[in-house]
Amino acid sequence: MIPLTAGNTRVKEARKLHRRSVRTERRCFLADGPKAVEGALGTVLASGQDCVVEVFATPAAASEYADLLGAAPLTLVDDRAMSGLSDSVSPAGLVAVCRFLDAPQPTAPRLLTICADVRDPGNAGTVIRTTDAAGGDAVVLAGDSVDPYNPKTIRATVGSLFHLPVGVERDAAAAVRAAQAAGLTVLAADGAGEVELFTPAADELLARPTAWLFGNEAWGLPDELAALADHRVRIPILGAAESLNLATAAAVCLYASARAMMNG
Amino acid sequence: MIPLTAGNTRVKEARKLHRRSVRTERRCFLADGPKAVEGALGTVLASGQDCVVEVFATPAAASEYADLLGAAPLTLVDDRAMSGLSDSVSPAGLVAVCRFLDAPQPTAPRLLTICADVRDPGNAGTVIRTTDAAGGDAVVLAGDSVDPYNPKTIRATVGSLFHLPVGVERDAAAAVRAAQAAGLTVLAADGAGEVELFTPAADELLARPTAWLFGNEAWGLPDELAALADHRVRIPILGAAESLNLATAAAVCLYASARAMMNG
Repeated sequence: MIPLTAGNTRVKEARKLHRRSVRTERRCFLADGPKAVEGALGTVLASGQDCVVEVFATPAAASEYADLLGAAPLTLVDDRAMSGLSDSVSPAGLVAVCRFLDAPQPTAPRLLTICADVRDPGNAGTVIRTTDAAGGDAVVLAGDSVDPYNPKTIRATVGSLFHLPVGVERDAAAAVRAAQAAGLTVLAADGAGEVELFTPAADELLARPTAWLFGNEAWGLPDELAALADHRVRIPILGAAESLNLATAAAVCLYASARAMMNG
Repeated sequence: MIPLTAGNTRVKEARKLHRRSVRTERRCFLADGPKAVEGALGTVLASGQDCVVEVFATPAAASEYADLLGAAPLTLVDDRAMSGLSDSVSPAGLVAVCRFLDAPQPTAPRLLTICADVRDPGNAGTVIRTTDAAGGDAVVLAGDSVDPYNPKTIRATVGSLFHLPVGVERDAAAAVRAAQAAGLTVLAADGAGEVELFTPAADELLARPTAWLFGNEAWGLPDELAALADHRVRIPILGAAESLNLATAAAVCLYASARAMMNG
């Protein structure tokens, strides 16, 4: 098989999936690199379809990752075509065209993450990964949040996008109300919150099924959204720092829940 | 005062501080943006000298941040000179030339962070900020770690570089032994550690003065360094994720210590 070049129509069409509008229209995205491709190849959708439509690989990567690729539908491309398909500055040499995951939200979640207006794809991906590690059941990217299928988001999840359902809800208030309707206590992470993490009052709350609500990297949660939560929880700041960044704050909150689940 | 241009000798000399070798030689660095400049202006060194040598600002920024700048030694520069001085893609318009902080390490620390071979300046800065927030006393960037005075590191600390001593120790094993000599129990964060965080055994360890030892973003801690620690502690992974990233893992560990200090 002669590797396809950057000018090939299939390569050009796949490359268009870098744009969110095209992803939304076609309900497909690109999984970039061995970790993401491995996650995608291991995923069968609720519809019964394979997640992966096809894998583009350079001849070198096809050989290096032969075990991983197995019987996947494979198309060889040259290095220049690959650098157009990959979002990475140093492409690993394999990119899969994947169908939207559309994993159904869990019916009786114990731990959920709602991100409102998270803008940085790396942050969103890290929060998805951390939710997975902490034993969470799902993530909702709410409001004006970044696309979960953004290549940088997928990379930062290090496979977790394929492990747990990640939903999108443009109306952040509706996401909060849906969590409450599912029996979850919604805790807004808020530097001015009335409950302090690690106190007996917080531990009591964490014993319940919980949805954590996190705000934007720069401006946090809008007051009206924080007010919709059942409680607002602040992480104690013991030193002179003013705050934590979004991903580290989420890790502290989610692992406070993990601790409560382990010891509960 | 006519703003200096990019060709001015003082501007060109200050710009050289983007290079680590020049910073090390001159024992000076650049604090970029209002947050860092504010931290630097509030800092007097152990030697009694002001941390700030001089502040370069555009006329617009000098006016916008007049309150912050107060009586600081100010030099106006034009926009092009500023974009050379600033490491940021959208410079805020003020950059301070600062003396190395050289804050003495605390004599009786309760909580210390040692990073071995941390390479990403954003990660290093985030760990410094999180250590500060969690009530830590100092950070040591050990082994082949990034320079604490890298502009990206400073930005990610969001002022915490000026709040707590950040030391450099090229020999990571020596940093571990120094912590032990200072009476600290060294806990290596290690996915294969023999102690699991949030268990009674871990809580008992965290009641002692602690130094957390974190490894490189990609390959973690070398075995021989982890073996030097008093204990190796793993963060429980409750879901399908393989691990956490460095900054979130550090946040979970450091706040486990913060919880122990609050409730101890």
